[in-house]
Amino acid sequence: MKLLRYGPKGQEKPGCLDHQGNLRDLSGVVADFGGDTVSLDSLAQLSALDPRTLPLVAQPVRIGAPMSHIPNFYCIGLNYAAHAAETGAEKPKEPLVFSKATSSLAGPEDTIIIPRGATRTDWEVELGIVIGKPALYVDEADALDYVAGYCAVNDVSERDFQKNRGGQWIKGKSAPGFGKIGPWLVTKDEVPDPQALRLQLSVNGENRQDSTTADMIFTVAQIVSYMSHFMELVPGDVIATGTPSGVGAGMSPQRFLQPGDIVALEVEGLGQQKADVIAAV
Amino acid sequence: MKLLRYGPKGQEKPGCLDHQGNLRDLSGVVADFGGDTVSLDSLAQLSALDPRTLPLVAQPVRIGAPMSHIPNFYCIGLNYAAHAAETGAEKPKEPLVFSKATSSLAGPEDTIIIPRGATRTDWEVELGIVIGKPALYVDEADALDYVAGYCAVNDVSERDFQKNRGGQWIKGKSAPGFGKIGPWLVTKDEVPDPQALRLQLSVNGENRQDSTTADMIFTVAQIVSYMSHFMELVPGDVIATGTPSGVGAGMSPQRFLQPGDIVALEVEGLGQQKADVIAAV
Repeated sequence: MKLLRYGPKGQEKPGCLDHQGNLRDLSGVVADFGGDTVSLDSLAQLSALDPRTLPLVAQPVRIGAPMSHIPNFYCIGLNYAAHAAETGAEKPKEPLVFSKATSSLAGPEDTIIIPRGATRTDWEVELGIVIGKPALYVDEADALDYVAGYCAVNDVSERDFQKNRGGQWIKGKSAPGFGKIGPWLVTKDEVPDPQALRLQLSVNGENRQDSTTADMIFTVAQIVSYMSHFMELVPGDVIATGTPSGVGAGMSPQRFLQPGDIVALEVEGLGQQKADVIAAV
Repeated sequence: MKLLRYGPKGQEKPGCLDHQGNLRDLSGVVADFGGDTVSLDSLAQLSALDPRTLPLVAQPVRIGAPMSHIPNFYCIGLNYAAHAAETGAEKPKEPLVFSKATSSLAGPEDTIIIPRGATRTDWEVELGIVIGKPALYVDEADALDYVAGYCAVNDVSERDFQKNRGGQWIKGKSAPGFGKIGPWLVTKDEVPDPQALRLQLSVNGENRQDSTTADMIFTVAQIVSYMSHFMELVPGDVIATGTPSGVGAGMSPQRFLQPGDIVALEVEGLGQQKADVIAAV
């Protein structure tokens, strides 16, 4: 299934795409998506529906983030060797885990807002994992059993806030609009191999990132298993699995986002994002 | 008001203490506490109630965390000069922000669980801030207007996971049970000066931490204002404001928690916690 939320910001309704790509309304079936409503049990109930029996939604309509709230927005840093190299960092020996404020959550079409005082706002296309059942001390061989599905992520990052304002990366990862996910939560039955997905990102039509999840240092299964030894992952948690090379901080000279820029991205099978860049007022 | 949640784990009901310290049931008024139900608007509605009109709850009863879920569990690191010194770190120039997994949330009586493979699990008594309305780009002079109240926190920490497992502190801060808050969410009208609260913690009856929030490097108002320039704080967010000196990692020789230990703590006006230490199975 391709699950999504549509409608004006703050008033989104849950929906899905049917086999013809038409948008169908799920609001008669589920109140909203987020947390336990994307658990594997909840998704199993949805998968029993025939989409043709659901109301058709007239398009075009705004597509929001596919979940209204998430318990945690985790990220893996430096998970592609070429990206670690372009930032001058060593290839990590174990997954590097950090988090974004959950209030950074935004949809695929929502503007990317450069925070006040920011000068180095950067892009990061990533494969996002959505957790489907509580995961604690899970073996790698079983780890994919805990995954509900996948989504495209732009882990928007302010490099100065991230690196030069004292301590931890969360400060540069958390501004409103910095956690762009969607358009869809694609259930894992439609993603036979999460380690074979092309990731692409452009700025103003110029290609910036073009890679594949085959190049991840730590796989989806390894990440879920590893993290479950440090915290309990819970339904609706998002884990952005790291970005490949081609970020602005890795260019020579460095280039960062400016108001008026347009950022487009696609993760194979998970849909496209396209967003204008504006400055915070 | 002193708000709380009582009853068996996973089945807690919302309640409050009346003026005589009796426990009153609020489940007829509010479904649960967490997120928007602790917004300033929601709390204003509760404060209009006469607690004597609410059902009395027979004691003793288990007290859980005062919120069932929180959007974000933020922490400030090294916010007491003597604690920064005992860990060998420099006094921070700006607030050091990190986060805990929200799934670490636990109540004041819940066991402290030493994670698998852990050898350096430590204690940290702290003043916790609970946010009451969305805060973005807030001035320090206005910052307390965005606070709903306060709670006692034990920011339980695994030092080896925190410092020696690659990168960011979240790995050592997030195990189940590591985010102990409560017993109460005390609304700010009952805390006239959050910078004048004594903090104490003992292990097996031996005093380990005894300090005051007067010694915080960055005040509650400074923290809320500062953080609001990097992320939007939202109702129900908890910010643990840092621990004073006296943690196990700062002792010579270092001492860490062992199964069978009992950790007790109190933050002045915010209540007490007392918890057994066990090992994860």
